[in-house]
Amino acid sequence: MRVVHPAQAKGKKIVIVIGGGFGGLNTALALAEKSDVFVILIDQRNHHLFQPLLYQVATAGLNPGDIALPIRAEFSDISNVEVHLGTVERIDLKERVVYGSDIEIEFDFLVLACGAQHSYFGHPEWEPYAPGLKTLEQATEIRRRILTAFEEAENELDSEKQNSLLNFVVVGGGATGVELAGAIADIARTVIVDDFKRIDPERARVILIEAGSRLLAAFDPELSDRTREDLEELGVEVRLNSRVEKIDETGVRVGTDFIPSRSVFWGAGVAARRLDFSGANVELDRSGRIVVGRDLALPGFANVFCIGDQAAVPWKDGMIVPGLAPAAIQEGKHVASQILAVISNRKRRDFSYLDKGMMATIGKNRAVMQAGGIKMSGFIAWQAWLFVHIFYLIGFRNRVSVMSQWVWNYLFSKRGARLITERDWRLVKSQAAMASTPSPGGGRAPSS
Amino acid sequence: MRVVHPAQAKGKKIVIVIGGGFGGLNTALALAEKSDVFVILIDQRNHHLFQPLLYQVATAGLNPGDIALPIRAEFSDISNVEVHLGTVERIDLKERVVYGSDIEIEFDFLVLACGAQHSYFGHPEWEPYAPGLKTLEQATEIRRRILTAFEEAENELDSEKQNSLLNFVVVGGGATGVELAGAIADIARTVIVDDFKRIDPERARVILIEAGSRLLAAFDPELSDRTREDLEELGVEVRLNSRVEKIDETGVRVGTDFIPSRSVFWGAGVAARRLDFSGANVELDRSGRIVVGRDLALPGFANVFCIGDQAAVPWKDGMIVPGLAPAAIQEGKHVASQILAVISNRKRRDFSYLDKGMMATIGKNRAVMQAGGIKMSGFIAWQAWLFVHIFYLIGFRNRVSVMSQWVWNYLFSKRGARLITERDWRLVKSQAAMASTPSPGGGRAPSS
Repeated sequence: MRVVHPAQAKGKKIVIVIGGGFGGLNTALALAEKSDVFVILIDQRNHHLFQPLLYQVATAGLNPGDIALPIRAEFSDISNVEVHLGTVERIDLKERVVYGSDIEIEFDFLVLACGAQHSYFGHPEWEPYAPGLKTLEQATEIRRRILTAFEEAENELDSEKQNSLLNFVVVGGGATGVELAGAIADIARTVIVDDFKRIDPERARVILIEAGSRLLAAFDPELSDRTREDLEELGVEVRLNSRVEKIDETGVRVGTDFIPSRSVFWGAGVAARRLDFSGANVELDRSGRIVVGRDLALPGFANVFCIGDQAAVPWKDGMIVPGLAPAAIQEGKHVASQILAVISNRKRRDFSYLDKGMMATIGKNRAVMQAGGIKMSGFIAWQAWLFVHIFYLIGFRNRVSVMSQWVWNYLFSKRGARLITERDWRLVKSQAAMASTPSPGGGRAPSS
Repeated sequence: MRVVHPAQAKGKKIVIVIGGGFGGLNTALALAEKSDVFVILIDQRNHHLFQPLLYQVATAGLNPGDIALPIRAEFSDISNVEVHLGTVERIDLKERVVYGSDIEIEFDFLVLACGAQHSYFGHPEWEPYAPGLKTLEQATEIRRRILTAFEEAENELDSEKQNSLLNFVVVGGGATGVELAGAIADIARTVIVDDFKRIDPERARVILIEAGSRLLAAFDPELSDRTREDLEELGVEVRLNSRVEKIDETGVRVGTDFIPSRSVFWGAGVAARRLDFSGANVELDRSGRIVVGRDLALPGFANVFCIGDQAAVPWKDGMIVPGLAPAAIQEGKHVASQILAVISNRKRRDFSYLDKGMMATIGKNRAVMQAGGIKMSGFIAWQAWLFVHIFYLIGFRNRVSVMSQWVWNYLFSKRGARLITERDWRLVKSQAAMASTPSPGGGRAPSS
């Protein structure tokens, strides 16, 4: 059906924002209660995700609910923003219509903020054996695999099989890979160490594989080296200049070397989301990002903007703006101001990125960061990282519980969210159902 | 393989406890560091669940991590208790061997604490359309269905379809059904009410169906009536003496009446877990509970005990001990003391149940409770309920965050854990994968 929105009748300009990440959320918030516009925010998920802490969910440090926020809750008191849970199938830029699975909306302005996802470099068949870390489901799946590996190792009597169960391989030496590898090593060495009585978690090997010549390529080389040293001190084996040739259920082949592992995680390539523009000429860069002008608009479509990880935004020295939360937030606010400028016939301004720097944690109490000329590492950098992230979490209603968990974890090296939940609720029930049949072999230990 | 446990060599008695619920957990804790015994606690899940608050997870009040505790964490400092994550396939009571999926252990004492599950009265085909509430996965599935129903109703233009999306049916007027129905009505009226702009959540109907003549049959009739009145005040339609004839994807048939609904939840019959006893003569009652003697041992097997929801424990006036957490805890401690008595040739004692009463919440700030002769209802009962449950939660490491969320929810009527997560992480990814192919129709709104 074609949704002719009531707000249109009221002569308001319809702004459609696709994506409830940092970019889209902040665009909509910056347009809140602006009398000239009515905003429709579309996302296929009902929650905004604080992605910088997603690896903490994957390593049982935080609950999914601690880093996710219902998008609706952000706008419940805002009269001119409507949240739509659904998928977008096609966009007609000329006719100015967004076609969704169950909607069809005309827009005056469109903001694309669809983000990015992991790319398997043309090997989608690797994905089942090496989940990425972009969604809550992937995070809990990684958590399930890590914890299950230790449980199975505890039961395993064959020492070779036990070793392969205790091999954890992280592919990709970017921030995601570094933080995930550090956190896994941290769990194995400090958190789980007491829980198992037959295996020595110290035997757990964490291997970080990077195709390039250094970790955190976006950072200063000096910090790349420091990161490698810190990870190695945590017991992580860092393999640079190593290319993954194959991943299957038995393990990973790196060059000529084979690493037996049941726990491989993907933090490598990133590709922007792609949308169907009904054949319109939209320029994409090598990573599938939409090339936009300095005003963040699509060339030829002045009323269509693209921001965040989905956009290739020109910066300095031919570089593009890095795919970081602060950048997406700044871009979202800029686009909102541009839309209001156009409506009131004011002049468009170019977007200028205020570089707030980059940071990455290494294990429990170390980090590296650089902002402008400043470089920091070690404990001080970690404290800065902690401060910045808790600062961002303000606005998240559960910051109380997040912070109390941080403190708790930090003081007692605990991992509270150490839950193995099944992928499918029916799986659990079906075991129960079997248990309820008294026939031989049907018995099961209980779910507590 | 046959595990001959090192502890056996040391001449310790092997105690196998099956089930990490209230009964099994407390049996093992009561045997902690007792020099004569070595305990192997087997569960198919890695976490102990605080089931009395499971309905809070189903209604987005709490995170799964808030009411679940890694079983291993409880015993990490205890030298004579080993936790085994696995399933039990068969038990040979005469040979005293437990056969698991990957183990085979001889025991000197066996404690069965496998709990119960929902029974569909011979209609397992109803389960996919009416999940029960016994596991975390079921709770998050119910949460997913409730929140998705509101989202779909918001998008639905056909008012008849919209109505059926806003019909929530709870089957079973016991504590689970009453608490779930009250909480759903509470969400619809207070929590979600602001979040949706096209539908009026007040239109949400919550229907509680009970086959018997009153709610909470285990309680005093006076409290049953009070419960019905309180629920009806919350807007719940209570249907007594109503039998469910059929449940499918379109709704529920109750007698001759059909209720269109996509959100049916099951809180009705309970059946004890069943195990395969290799043909040994183990007496079960109508609900599949194992009939035990006053010492909680199986007739004919003095070294085998059964406790908690899996056991039919004789009480007074021909009644059996009710399936409540306090009962399971008392039984667990009693069995532990009996095992130690037998080992040191002391006399066995019968179990005597100290009735701590029963309670059930109705919506956000009402409850009913009875203990001995005392009956309470309304706000005072709710405060008592809150106190008791927070008291129990002590020992759960995350009581801080639980309590802070309680306070938060109570003050602001928020539901923080309002997340719709997909059943399968691969489902989410596969949408992303499709989105990454630029072919027409492949477009998707992002996961934020």
